[in-house]
Amino acid sequence: MSVEEKIREFGYELKEPPKPLASYIPVIKTGNLVFTAGQIPMSGGKLLFSGKVGKDLSLEEGRKAAELCAVNCLNVIKSEIGSLDNIERIIKVTVFVNSADGFTDQPKVANGASDFLVKIFGENGKHVRSAVGVNELPVDSAVEIEMIAEVK
Amino acid sequence: MSVEEKIREFGYELKEPPKPLASYIPVIKTGNLVFTAGQIPMSGGKLLFSGKVGKDLSLEEGRKAAELCAVNCLNVIKSEIGSLDNIERIIKVTVFVNSADGFTDQPKVANGASDFLVKIFGENGKHVRSAVGVNELPVDSAVEIEMIAEVK
Amino acid sequence: MSVEEKIREFGYELKEPPKPLASYIPVIKTGNLVFTAGQIPMSGGKLLFSGKVGKDLSLEEGRKAAELCAVNCLNVIKSEIGSLDNIERIIKVTVFVNSADGFTDQPKVANGASDFLVKIFGENGKHVRSAVGVNELPVDSAVEIEMIAEVK
Repeated sequence: MSVEEKIREFGYELKEPPKPLASYIPVIKTGNLVFTAGQIPMSGGKLLFSGKVGKDLSLEEGRKAAELCAVNCLNVIKSEIGSLDNIERIIKVTVFVNSADGFTDQPKVANGASDFLVKIFGENGKHVRSAVGVNELPVDSAVEIEMIAEVK
Repeated sequence: MSVEEKIREFGYELKEPPKPLASYIPVIKTGNLVFTAGQIPMSGGKLLFSGKVGKDLSLEEGRKAAELCAVNCLNVIKSEIGSLDNIERIIKVTVFVNSADGFTDQPKVANGASDFLVKIFGENGKHVRSAVGVNELPVDSAVEIEMIAEVK
Repeated sequence: MSVEEKIREFGYELKEPPKPLASYIPVIKTGNLVFTAGQIPMSGGKLLFSGKVGKDLSLEEGRKAAELCAVNCLNVIKSEIGSLDNIERIIKVTVFVNSADGFTDQPKVANGASDFLVKIFGENGKHVRSAVGVNELPVDSAVEIEMIAEVK
């Protein structure tokens, strides 16, 4: 089963990747590393999760937002390397969580992305990660995630 | 026209790069990648943009702050690689915006840096980017930017 | 004197590295670079510094928290590369400081990590760095630090 088929089993279709909100590109390859721009939980041109986790959104919604960000990271990587089967390993994920005052469960939110990556890539999906809270994110997104992957 | 001449056309003179605020170095090269330390909108030894975008500073001032951070990133890169003409591509820009509560236009602020890089480097200036809001930055700077560039 | 012996002179024992709070790995090597996950000031299974610097914690406590994060980064790197004597250089440190409103001394907090690295590695410990404030961190940690190092 291809990586893209596995992703489809979780209910995600990799269509046209979300357009950057500004004058930059969504993905770049240098050597055998691919860096993504920060991705927010857009789907079908709409932001599905906005507001602060711990106030406007539950932990579970935050997790789903992080998962969708990870899908969008993979989607822009696909646009660069053709097929996600060309990913050797996921190297790093940085997770910014739009956090209500006193919300300190950023790691549980970020697990939405990390767990998903391990489901899709197995051992090769295991990555290093930083998860931090921030007081505001672009267009009031609940989560923003950037990814570094190693390609074959 | 050299990269430095193009930068001069936008009104910036690359003099002595701003000193780090602490015990670290402003730029480092590993392989063919150059990483900068986080740069703030200093010029001539003074911080030109302080406070929170969306409260103390307008969006336009935030954009100018981001542009100046990008200039300072290039300036410290120059100190490492001799001439900015040795830059192959800009790989990544991470933009931290000192954000008032409710301010969610971080991408527009970050465009101050991204647009500038594309004006200077053309296609080779197109980079991936994350822009996030934070509640505080060093010395109350309005913006902090770090950059990764690929050298020839 | 080995790197680990130098670290011991500062009162730190590198035991079992702190477990990730979630489904990711603490360290990964790609090419000759090692990336750590974000580390918090855990020691002996306990979080030693929690709360906001500038309100719950003094600047000096923030510095010590940053130093301990740096020790933990080195500890997880050791778990990957066997001996810290295999570190060629420290490349980059990113420091997220859990910041009270109005606290803008993130660089001084981050110096707790940077100064320590230079004490341990000398010239090879000099790195680029970003230090930013954030409104919340995992489990209310005072500081979170991620590191990139180059190995021999």
